[in-house]
Amino acid sequence: MKIALAQLNYHVGNFESNTAKIIHHINKARNNGADLVVFAELCVCGYPSRDFLEFDEFIGLCDNAAKKIAAACTDMACIIGIPTFNHNAEGKDLSNSAYFIENGAIKAKVNKALLPNYDIFDEYRYFEPSMEFNCIDFKGQRIALTICEDLWNTIENPLYITRPMDILIEQKPDVMINIAASPFSYKHDEERIAILEDNAKRYNLPLFYVNHVGAQTELIFDGGSLVFDNTGKLVDELPYFEEALTYYILGDDASITLQQPSTVMAERAGDIEQIYQAVILGIRDYFYKSGFSRAILGLSGGIDSAVVCALAAEALGAENVMAVLLPSRFSTDHSLKDAEDLVANLGCKSETIPIKTITEAFETALEPQFQGLPFNIAEENIQSRSRAILLMAMCNKFGYILLNTSNKSEAAVGYGTLYGDMCGGISVIGDVYKTQVFELARYINREREIIPENSIIKPPSAELRPDQKDSDSLPEYDILDKIICEYVEHRCSSAEIIRMGYDEATVRRTIKLINLAEHKRYQTPPILRVSPKAFGMGRRMPIVGKYLS
Amino acid sequence: MKIALAQLNYHVGNFESNTAKIIHHINKARNNGADLVVFAELCVCGYPSRDFLEFDEFIGLCDNAAKKIAAACTDMACIIGIPTFNHNAEGKDLSNSAYFIENGAIKAKVNKALLPNYDIFDEYRYFEPSMEFNCIDFKGQRIALTICEDLWNTIENPLYITRPMDILIEQKPDVMINIAASPFSYKHDEERIAILEDNAKRYNLPLFYVNHVGAQTELIFDGGSLVFDNTGKLVDELPYFEEALTYYILGDDASITLQQPSTVMAERAGDIEQIYQAVILGIRDYFYKSGFSRAILGLSGGIDSAVVCALAAEALGAENVMAVLLPSRFSTDHSLKDAEDLVANLGCKSETIPIKTITEAFETALEPQFQGLPFNIAEENIQSRSRAILLMAMCNKFGYILLNTSNKSEAAVGYGTLYGDMCGGISVIGDVYKTQVFELARYINREREIIPENSIIKPPSAELRPDQKDSDSLPEYDILDKIICEYVEHRCSSAEIIRMGYDEATVRRTIKLINLAEHKRYQTPPILRVSPKAFGMGRRMPIVGKYLS
Repeated sequence: MKIALAQLNYHVGNFESNTAKIIHHINKARNNGADLVVFAELCVCGYPSRDFLEFDEFIGLCDNAAKKIAAACTDMACIIGIPTFNHNAEGKDLSNSAYFIENGAIKAKVNKALLPNYDIFDEYRYFEPSMEFNCIDFKGQRIALTICEDLWNTIENPLYITRPMDILIEQKPDVMINIAASPFSYKHDEERIAILEDNAKRYNLPLFYVNHVGAQTELIFDGGSLVFDNTGKLVDELPYFEEALTYYILGDDASITLQQPSTVMAERAGDIEQIYQAVILGIRDYFYKSGFSRAILGLSGGIDSAVVCALAAEALGAENVMAVLLPSRFSTDHSLKDAEDLVANLGCKSETIPIKTITEAFETALEPQFQGLPFNIAEENIQSRSRAILLMAMCNKFGYILLNTSNKSEAAVGYGTLYGDMCGGISVIGDVYKTQVFELARYINREREIIPENSIIKPPSAELRPDQKDSDSLPEYDILDKIICEYVEHRCSSAEIIRMGYDEATVRRTIKLINLAEHKRYQTPPILRVSPKAFGMGRRMPIVGKYLS
Repeated sequence: MKIALAQLNYHVGNFESNTAKIIHHINKARNNGADLVVFAELCVCGYPSRDFLEFDEFIGLCDNAAKKIAAACTDMACIIGIPTFNHNAEGKDLSNSAYFIENGAIKAKVNKALLPNYDIFDEYRYFEPSMEFNCIDFKGQRIALTICEDLWNTIENPLYITRPMDILIEQKPDVMINIAASPFSYKHDEERIAILEDNAKRYNLPLFYVNHVGAQTELIFDGGSLVFDNTGKLVDELPYFEEALTYYILGDDASITLQQPSTVMAERAGDIEQIYQAVILGIRDYFYKSGFSRAILGLSGGIDSAVVCALAAEALGAENVMAVLLPSRFSTDHSLKDAEDLVANLGCKSETIPIKTITEAFETALEPQFQGLPFNIAEENIQSRSRAILLMAMCNKFGYILLNTSNKSEAAVGYGTLYGDMCGGISVIGDVYKTQVFELARYINREREIIPENSIIKPPSAELRPDQKDSDSLPEYDILDKIICEYVEHRCSSAEIIRMGYDEATVRRTIKLINLAEHKRYQTPPILRVSPKAFGMGRRMPIVGKYLS
């Protein structure tokens, strides 16, 4: 049997483009002699479709698309992922299904049993877990077809009380196929390989695994579809962050013969390289899928906006990036110079709009109320917010999307101005710690200096008052980032973090800052997710809660 | 047996105050001769604790609190709601539990079986559903103790495949007790009564039901705890939007004798009166539980800000409300006059800060970029955003929280300025349609004119350009609100709404506007939820999705 794996970039709710893309790849696979082409989980509607799934019409449109795909799938077979109505009276109204389509007709339907409902996943919000398990016979081979999480209950702390493959294996299948929607986070590729290798070994079966690629707002799918033989050996690994269509001959003896050179990675890409590629794809798809092409951002001369500017230029083309310098009376000459150097290095567009007359107009207007009270955070925030108004005015006038340049460390402790530098359509590095931003800058500069060296080495500063430094208000970032990671990503208590050797006062203060900033983070743009626990849809905290605040 | 029902206002994560409050009511109930006092679902930590539940330390603090409560519960019994560790290897790590505490010790534990995971509910994110059902014997009576949703699988489209009471009834209980966390939405009181009445009748048992009261950020719990006899007759209904402690003698013959006059409502409060009370409680608890006391808002002379100002004055006291008039060159004299009249009627504080010099400073600064391009939405938004900066500067200088004054109709179609009038700590009427805002204004004026009549009767306008009216850009609100409701709350397709008789072009345009505004709504403040489907945590839509946009 000749199997094709189609690792594609879908668009949530865009039935026209998703259907056309699936049919195009069916035709291509048929032309290459494939018997079966495998697409990813919920490919018909895109993943995650979220509450669109609650619209009966949306499910009807999925059904229409499946009919079109089936009609195109003649003289061969395909597997597609699709939400379907659950016709049992009891339970949720939908199933997360896979259709096995053969010669123009839907021959079998498999429903997902293990529904992830943690972090960014909400599948039990929509779907009823399956309790029926049947293999599919095709071309003399018996296929155990499962959907993503169905193979993920093998870890130390199993989240589910059933294991679909334990039931399917009794039907003596010849091969496992798993269709998935497994979003990127650094290290997740290794975890994926380990879990799937474990399945191939445990059940002594070859395993074909197809993932999504492409970004859907904050979620980035990295592809990296996988093929294992029945000893658990990884025989192929599809490319990361790009589409692919690959072919394999599966022999009756369970042998797998690649029809193109294997692209198993000799050496795994480092975290920073992966983050770089993920974020580029995230920016590109955010713009492309929302029908925009041009980005704008404020350039301070600091490292965060410099890195975002370089990433945007790579993702969208430098000619589509407008960098705006917005100096205040506290901006240093070297900051302006660093920003100008970056613009020159990248070749992007730039404008300079000083904010002095604007902040003075605010301060004058507020004189009757402020009555000579000392300069404080109110005046600092006026600067940051005046910049946001100017950038948004440029967006409104010329059709840019504003890129947010906050990093994860700032977002964590609330070191940023709501409606000021926390504005934007999408947060590019909001899941990247400050210490990682430095590494990203070095990575961007790996061949030549793009980010000015001075932006990298100078002490971080918001420049909202004279001689301000981040370290005036915050612990040094190498300490801060580790504490944030232990609390936010590993969900350790302050006592546990202190036991690791961090200063007690610093730990308590940091955790308190994190909890007190929930109200700010609630109103920030979606953040491109690159870590196992990003701020946003995957982390849902009370705002008026009292715990640790 | 003398049973006490404690309908209380908890604070998420505030173990100190929740524990003290529970123990205080145990002591009070004991002094009044109660054998058993019943508290609400997850009362120990507050509801919803959301991802705090993922911290082991948080669950440990719940356990500590339970020990203190048990120690205080001598010579009587109580029922409390608490998250507990699930010690089975498989499944989620937690259970949503009820402890039956008797004479200082935890005598029984019951786990919730039906876990709501829709709209604002995420319980399967944390909890493993129970599959064990046992009654509890106490004082010669057998209690079938269930938790909230466990009794809610009796409706036409059952969401779950089990029904806990069908199993418990085989153990021949004498009484049902249900502890709940059932948030307010208008009409939900009637639905609650119908479902619980149906349970009492179906199982032919008396039923005691205890709900939360009080707001946790956007979710408002209205109380309204209930007592039914075994014929399904509603014998008591606790007050709405306030705490209560009531007593009942449950006879061995299943008779219920109230120990205070019944407060079953002769006539149900209207939707608008309920919304009024809910929103007042929502504002009050948002401020109280986050440790603030003073609110600020921009007063335009229009009806939305007038209504919010009146609600805030009722919730916090007029002396704690600062209304700021922010006239531009497009503000009409009558708007200023209407705003001033409102301030005088309420007796709240006010300031006037003209924005003309500020918007001029922006326009001058942008002249090199805008190069004489015509006045458009860019300049309109500068006005709205300049107001937001001034209001936030007042917050930063004086410690106010900014109240957002957008209504649900505007929020739906994106008729508002992000980082402008869409700012605020909490959105007061973001779940109230414009047509309901008019009704709220009439309700506020039921005894005397508080909202100036002119603010109610004049055509709605944003006053961001000369002679602007909402109806220039939007359908009339009586039509618009109905289309929004059918799409957002009832999840009807455009075809279905058109079949109801609405103009096709208007329906398609409205739905498109709603879908295109997801990116704006993503960044708006939490919205006090008063409808069955509010924007915010209960409605999760893709941003770059293509469906109907």
